[in-house]
This record gives sequence, C-alpha cells and structure tokens, in this order.
Amino acid sequence: MDAETKAALDKLFATDTALYQERGFQRRVGWGQKPALINIDLANAWTREDSPFTCEGMDTIIPAVQQVLAAFRAQGLPIVFTTTAYEIIDGDHTDMGLWGKKIPAEVLVAGSPLVEIDTRLERRPDELVIVKKQASAFRGTQLSSFLTAAGVDTVVVTGTTASACVRATVEDAIADGFRPIVVRECVGDRIAGAVEWNLYDIDAKFGDVEPLATVLEHLRQTRAID
Amino acid sequence: MDAETKAALDKLFATDTALYQERGFQRRVGWGQKPALINIDLANAWTREDSPFTCEGMDTIIPAVQQVLAAFRAQGLPIVFTTTAYEIIDGDHTDMGLWGKKIPAEVLVAGSPLVEIDTRLERRPDELVIVKKQASAFRGTQLSSFLTAAGVDTVVVTGTTASACVRATVEDAIADGFRPIVVRECVGDRIAGAVEWNLYDIDAKFGDVEPLATVLEHLRQTRAID
Amino acid sequence: MDAETKAALDKLFATDTALYQERGFQRRVGWGQKPALINIDLANAWTREDSPFTCEGMDTIIPAVQQVLAAFRAQGLPIVFTTTAYEIIDGDHTDMGLWGKKIPAEVLVAGSPLVEIDTRLERRPDELVIVKKQASAFRGTQLSSFLTAAGVDTVVVTGTTASACVRATVEDAIADGFRPIVVRECVGDRIAGAVEWNLYDIDAKFGDVEPLATVLEHLRQTRAID
Amino acid sequence: MDAETKAALDKLFATDTALYQERGFQRRVGWGQKPALINIDLANAWTREDSPFTCEGMDTIIPAVQQVLAAFRAQGLPIVFTTTAYEIIDGDHTDMGLWGKKIPAEVLVAGSPLVEIDTRLERRPDELVIVKKQASAFRGTQLSSFLTAAGVDTVVVTGTTASACVRATVEDAIADGFRPIVVRECVGDRIAGAVEWNLYDIDAKFGDVEPLATVLEHLRQTRAID
Repeated sequence: MDAETKAALDKLFATDTALYQERGFQRRVGWGQKPALINIDLANAWTREDSPFTCEGMDTIIPAVQQVLAAFRAQGLPIVFTTTAYEIIDGDHTDMGLWGKKIPAEVLVAGSPLVEIDTRLERRPDELVIVKKQASAFRGTQLSSFLTAAGVDTVVVTGTTASACVRATVEDAIADGFRPIVVRECVGDRIAGAVEWNLYDIDAKFGDVEPLATVLEHLRQTRAID
Repeated sequence: MDAETKAALDKLFATDTALYQERGFQRRVGWGQKPALINIDLANAWTREDSPFTCEGMDTIIPAVQQVLAAFRAQGLPIVFTTTAYEIIDGDHTDMGLWGKKIPAEVLVAGSPLVEIDTRLERRPDELVIVKKQASAFRGTQLSSFLTAAGVDTVVVTGTTASACVRATVEDAIADGFRPIVVRECVGDRIAGAVEWNLYDIDAKFGDVEPLATVLEHLRQTRAID
Repeated sequence: MDAETKAALDKLFATDTALYQERGFQRRVGWGQKPALINIDLANAWTREDSPFTCEGMDTIIPAVQQVLAAFRAQGLPIVFTTTAYEIIDGDHTDMGLWGKKIPAEVLVAGSPLVEIDTRLERRPDELVIVKKQASAFRGTQLSSFLTAAGVDTVVVTGTTASACVRATVEDAIADGFRPIVVRECVGDRIAGAVEWNLYDIDAKFGDVEPLATVLEHLRQTRAID
Repeated sequence: MDAETKAALDKLFATDTALYQERGFQRRVGWGQKPALINIDLANAWTREDSPFTCEGMDTIIPAVQQVLAAFRAQGLPIVFTTTAYEIIDGDHTDMGLWGKKIPAEVLVAGSPLVEIDTRLERRPDELVIVKKQASAFRGTQLSSFLTAAGVDTVVVTGTTASACVRATVEDAIADGFRPIVVRECVGDRIAGAVEWNLYDIDAKFGDVEPLATVLEHLRQTRAID
C-alpha cells in the first residue's frame, strides 16, 4: 500500500475509533486460563508463490508464527493447523459445497502439495490438522468439540487470510465461547488493505489483536492450568 | 466519508479487484430456486437514534428494505427478522457469553423496546423473529434448520451491521450451503468505511452484492418453486 | 411395566452388558471441575396431566429434581432449563421445521401455559431458559456457547423424555466435549420401557447414568472451580 | 434374541404404540424431492469379525445396502459414506475428544484397515467419505452443508449402529430439516434388542423406518428433481 492510501486508512480508523470509544466498543476480551494455538491455512497454497491463493508477507509471517509455535510447544499447550482441501472437485456433488462458485476452490485438491502445511512450521504428529471445507475453522469441523474436551478457553489465532478464514474463525471462536487473541504480525492476506481493515473490525468487535511481543510475554509469564 | 477518503478507498479496491480477477475470485454464486429474506438486526437499537448501536443511513435503508419486503410478501416467500437480545445481563452466567467483553451488549435487554423490530417494517405474525446471541444469524439458532425444512436455497440479506452481523451471517450462509445475495442499499453500519469495505470482501468471497433494482427485477421475473 | 416384561428386559440387558464389558464399552466419563445442571423440558406439557406430551412418574421425578436444583443453587453453579415451543404453527414456514410431521408439536404454542417451566421447580430469574425447537438442547441453540463461556466441563442432565430430548441432549453433550452425568431418578418418559432402554444405551456409550444419592454426594464433597 | 424375549419386546411395543397412536406420535415424515443416501460406519471395524465394534447380521445387511446403493447410483443421486477414525490417539489432546472415555475409540486409528469402507460396497471416487469423530454424521462435519448445497431434502440412512451412530444421525437429520428414511433391513448393532428398540424410537419420533422393498419401489417410481 502506498503512503497516501495508508494515511487515508489511518485517518478513517482514527475517526471510527473515536466513535467506538464513545459507544463502548473495542473492549478487551483478555486471556483465559488455557490457550490453544490455531494456525489458519498456513499451507503451501497460501504461503508459497504461484498459486491463486498466494498471500503477501510470508517473509515475516512465517518467522513470527515459528516463535508462537515454539512458545506453545514449550508449554505443551494444544496446537491445531487447518488447511482447506476437497476430495471431489467435479460433478454436482462436490464437497466444495457452494464455495467454488465464489473463489477458485477447485485448485485445493486433497492430497496435493498445495494443501499441505508449510514444512517451515515443522508440524509434529501430535498437532492436529483439521481439513476444513469452509472459511471458518469452526464450521463443519470438530474444532469446537476438540477445544472444549481439552479444557481450552482461549484461542490464539495466526494465518491467512485476514479477510476470510482468519476473520471467520475469530467470529466463530467468540460466538462459541472461546477468547480470541489474534497475533498481528502473524496474519496475512493477498490484497492491499485487507489485513488492516479486517484486524480493525476484529479488534473492535470479536477478539483482541495483540502484537507478537505481547503474546510471547504473556505466554512466558503464565503457566496454563490443565 | 469525505471525498478524499472515498477516492483513496476506491483506488485500493481497483487495485485489489485487478488481482482478484486475475486469480479467479469475485465469481457469481447466483440465485437458486427459492429465496428467503433475512433482515438482520433491524431493531430499534440499530435503526433509531441515541443507542450505542445506532447506525447511519436509515433514511434510505428503511425504505429500501420496505421494497424488498413487499416483493417477498407478494410471492409468499419466507421472511425472517433477527434481533440480538439477552435474558440475563448480570452475574457470571449471562447468555451474552463472551460478547459483552467486546461490545456494549448489556444494553440489549430482552423485552425492552430497543430490541424490538422497527415498526416501519410492519412485521407480520407469520414472519419469524429469531433472537440471536451472537453476530451470525446462523450461530446458535434454528435458522439453518428452518431454511432447509422450508426448501430454501438462497438467502437475500439486508440490515445491520455490515462489519459484524450482516457479514457473519453471509459467511455462514454460504458455508451452510445457501446462496447469499446482499442488497447493497439495504445494509448499514455505524462507522465510516465499514459498509464499503465489508461489502467488498463479501462480494469477493462469500456472496453476491447486488443493487436493489436488480434484486427487485429478479423477484419480479421469477416465480419461486415450492 | 409388568414383572414379566421387566424380567425379560433385565435378562436382555445382562446379556448385552456381558458383551459390552468384554468389548470395552460402558466406561466411566466421570466428573470434570465445573458442572452445570440442564433440566430438559420440565414444562407443563410434560410434567402435568392431559397433554399429548404428559409423562409418567412426576410424583418422584419432581422431588428428585428439586434436590439436585437445591444442590446446584447452594454452590452457585449454572442452571439451565429448556422448553420446546413454537412461534408459528400454521402455514408453510413454521419454526417447527419438520418435527411436526412426526410428533404433535403443534400443541406447543409459544407463550401458552403448556410450555412454561413447572412452577414446582421455582426457577429463578438468573437461571437461563432455552426455548428449543428440536429434541436436543444443543441443536439450534446457544447452549454450547453458553456453557463454554461459563467454563463448564460437565453437564448434569434431568428431565423428559428419555427416548427423545434427554437422550439427544446427552449424545450432543459428549459430542461437544462436555461430560454428561444423567440422574437416574430424574428422567421420565411416557411409554413403558423407554426410560430403561434409553438409559441403558446412554450409560453404555454417551454418559454416566448415576443414582441421585451419588450425584448429591459428589456435589456435597466437591467445590467447583470457577 | 430368544423367542421369549422377542415376545416380551413385541408386547411392550404394542402397548407403547397404542399410547403413541392416541397421542398423535408415529406420524409419517415422508419423502421429499431429492434424496441422498447416507451409509453410516459400514467400515471394517463394524462389518468384519474380531473388532470391538463388530456388529451382527452383516450376511443380510451388506446385500441389502448393495441394493440401495445400486438404486441411488442408477439415478445419479448423492451417496455419502461415513467412518469414524482418529488421528491422535495418545496424549491429552486427542481428536477423540471425550468419546474414548466411554467406548473403545482408541482402536479406530485413521489410515488403518479397520476404518476403511467395506470393499463389498464398492465405493466410487465420486461418493464422499466423511470421517467423523462423534456418533452423528452431522456433528462436527460438513454433511449438512454438503446436502444443502446439493439441494437434498431427504436422507435415506443405512448402517451401524442402531443404538449410536445411526440413531444420532437420524435425530440430527430431522433437526436440521432433512426427511430421514431408515431402511429396516440395512441397520445393524452388536447387542441383542438394540436394533428393535432404537428403530422403534426412531419411527415414533424422528424418521420413517421403512422396509427395503418399499424404499426400492419408491426410488423406481420417482425421478428426483435436481
């Protein structure tokens, strides 16, 4: 985004924040006692070049996610990865449902390298991969059940994209009773402005958007209760 | 929004659209055979002055929604209104869940005038009111079940706000297998830029944003199959 | 049920239990740290005479539920009541969905005395009433969200009927990650054998069926963590 | 089941049916316009010998399911298979959720032969396999979304077990707005009496239990609308 556009957006956010503050929005949901880490669609289709889903900023996003992963692994807290992939691409009865009518879902073939979790994140066998069909990691998946059974009350969210899967996941997280914490440096998108706008909306209404340093510091200072 | 900010946003959207078109996003989901009308949170807290939830633009939004309502009523198609209201505001066990930790949900007291559907919409007794607790009209409600049982395959969406309840409802609609059509003139919000940005994201990935005239024309030309 | 039929059922259960024990079913899910009490459909249609939904055994069930309620109230633990009621009975677009095609749902008119919680249970204003449309208290309601936001990990279940709403609620509870404990003396039905058979299936696969005395003793001995 | 026990159950059902008929239960939900076939857990753990999940009656159930499959394939109607399988068996953060605390879920290892669909059913690549984690094929899966997107209004259900996955699926199907038709000869269980009792409860309240011949005849006489 060029400096002029950035300035226009910042001005808009400043105006909007004044109204929100006066009205009682933009509160802090805060941390609970046991967080899980949910990494949204950090699979090759989103993190590598030359796919319709390729996102910007992976040079900084991947290392930031690596730091959050290390902090969760050090404490033995639950870690989930999601990817979006489809078994049946052709015909009337595809598991894409209607989504292929809006976005190029047909390239996300189950079993193909595109939908595998990016190897730079070194996923471990005891870290669950949820193969979702929709934007939200909660919709049509066992995520909510898994988190509840594990005693989780807080979800730290990273990944792509701000304007679809990350945002929909955060909306559903708070709706389902989990405290969402989004790590600012760990969220990407493919179009200019989408990260800024969607994190703004999320922080106003659905979850706390926090800097990486704050998230890491919180994890260092607390020990989760299991 | 001032002209300068509007110009900056338009420039951003033009850049983003070029990328989306090249990548295969912004497709048309289109109409199915039986639409339902879902009016999101057109209750007094959002449509009238002096509430924390008050939105802009009701002078044009209400008349536009009235036109869509008339078209649906003329054909006997299903009409749903939602409101957001809570039975238990105080204490540890509120039905606000966590949402009161982000937004001023505590003013949305069940049974109070604030949460009643705006009388200008003249809701009829056979038009369902769903009292939701979360942003999405689908989350924690019988909406999906109601629509499926009624043979609905398309949801025409109006209401407030673009950045929360309308958007979350549209995201869930397509995720649940319903074709979302959002009527541009019928959607509002309380902060500048939110309608523009969120309708942009919706149209790119989740549902078709269509002008009022197009929606009315489609309803005039077709007869739904029941 | 006559003695002969009871004997036949008991013999069947003995055979079935031998197989289940050998195969590793009928395990104990046990209590977690914070239980909520879910009273299913203890509204007049089920607890009083002369409704199509009238159940047997209320002379003992109501006093037993009163004891469980007292124990939960003494500790300030969350209490939920459900009822089943419909806003729109006639026409094509009823909120009964399809259920009225199987059972006499049309008598469960929202706002009528039939669907009010039995006054013998002395519901308090801070005890949530969930108006459900389906058998399960979790399906199409905010129950799962409410429980998660309240930090609940265990649901103690009472009410009616064993063969529909209680059973479906217990199935969904464990599916959603909550430990179900069913209080044997607190569950009723309207047909002979239904309580016995359904509690047998529940205990084998979905939740622990425990005597009232055991449940009360557990609540006395523990203090929930909030 | 011996003749004496069978007679006792039949007597009980006769008494119960008299009450249900008087009260207005046991109605027919009937067929809609587009059915899908849902085959529940017809994977080796349930259909072959020597697993904790092995069910009775596969000599007749498998051929009956083959006939229903042939009828659906002949018309190009949607066919879904489910299996139950887990990725992470050990440790605190298993995707079994709580179910392993009631039943021997730990043997259902994802990728193992036990959880593969029985080859006698000759699943085709365009027939969706849903890997579920819970009893119901609808809970925590994309099934409802898939069916709605495909315009399905009726689900024909076969498989195992009557007392868990089949029953929970049927309960959720009608709750989600789909007409459930259960094929009597196509449903199995591992304990005596469970098929009889659970099909009785299902037919009274949740879906129509129909003989194989009736289901095949209906499919022959109608052509689904797509």
